[in-house]
Amino acid sequence: MTLTTAHLSISLDGYVAGPDQSFADPLGRGGLALHRWHLGSDQGEVDARWSDRILRPGCAYVMGRNMFGPVRGGWDSWRPTDGSGEWRGWWGEEPPYHAPVFVLTHHEHDPVEMVGGTTFHFVTTGFADALRLAREAGNGDVSVAGGASTVRQAIAAGELDELTLDIAPVVLGGGERIFDGSIRPTLEILEAEHSPLATHVRYRVG
Amino acid sequence: MTLTTAHLSISLDGYVAGPDQSFADPLGRGGLALHRWHLGSDQGEVDARWSDRILRPGCAYVMGRNMFGPVRGGWDSWRPTDGSGEWRGWWGEEPPYHAPVFVLTHHEHDPVEMVGGTTFHFVTTGFADALRLAREAGNGDVSVAGGASTVRQAIAAGELDELTLDIAPVVLGGGERIFDGSIRPTLEILEAEHSPLATHVRYRVG
Repeated sequence: MTLTTAHLSISLDGYVAGPDQSFADPLGRGGLALHRWHLGSDQGEVDARWSDRILRPGCAYVMGRNMFGPVRGGWDSWRPTDGSGEWRGWWGEEPPYHAPVFVLTHHEHDPVEMVGGTTFHFVTTGFADALRLAREAGNGDVSVAGGASTVRQAIAAGELDELTLDIAPVVLGGGERIFDGSIRPTLEILEAEHSPLATHVRYRVG
Repeated sequence: MTLTTAHLSISLDGYVAGPDQSFADPLGRGGLALHRWHLGSDQGEVDARWSDRILRPGCAYVMGRNMFGPVRGGWDSWRPTDGSGEWRGWWGEEPPYHAPVFVLTHHEHDPVEMVGGTTFHFVTTGFADALRLAREAGNGDVSVAGGASTVRQAIAAGELDELTLDIAPVVLGGGERIFDGSIRPTLEILEAEHSPLATHVRYRVG
């Protein structure tokens, strides 16, 4: 059986990013604290185990436009402000995906091949097409990398099998919510673990 | 050392009650699902252990008006709709507190003594006074029973030492949030456990 999954770090008040996201502050105010459990130097064994699950070897990825690029608009507005060429994502020349990544966008673009096996494909025909292409491109498993609205689309379409949330002990007070009132999935707790830095819960999505 | 604590069941989207709370539906639409872990017949050992902590022997309680009574307004509007006398809370003649309970209200009223040691006192001079009276009335420990706005007041006043959240695998899509953007406490995970019905986390409030 193939699995379509998503894995997000959220605040205790349900935000996946803080307020005022921008090119300079892509996670929003306070948003970095959501990721201390996997980016911080004080990570322990439990956190390391759940970190290892963020990327799933063999699968392909679906990603929203705002996770790939910092601003709305066409390709010209996605150029780095230092004029160093075209925008190629946040992750440098060798992104951690090592797999095909299908980016939802309204602006057509040829695929961008990166070092290490990651290729960004740009899909202008919507989530269902991106998901189909991702299922065909990998081993059938798909990880919806984010952001929140793309994960919501996957849930709303009935296509997400599992959702893993790393609930950080942080209250952001604003930003982008994963559950914004537009969807009410049925969830079942499959597994949970905790560390001083986060409560990790894997849910089956009904 | 005495401890002031609160213990709330919340949805994954951060609500302690569903939308459209009313006399007939005091937990709001879908809100009962938040409490399945301690009210349901399928409760297991882990849930039972955290259930036992909702009430704290020896302490006194502070409670918001909306948790005690179903509607805004004076005592007349709190009378049961069947005309059977004065409103005495949701819990029948023998409430589970077996302790003094200080209810925040704008309407003065004499204390109401119930069967089994629970006495409802009505405090019209604000949260700080209710907290002081509760600390004096019990062993010094206080449990802020709810609802969300009273717990927020305790946090905003810097008076809450620990917050326990039972995170139910439920998305309510609306209702009353515990973290509504008005407070951003610093939290530290002290302890967590999970069952198929809820993820239980005890936080120190900074």
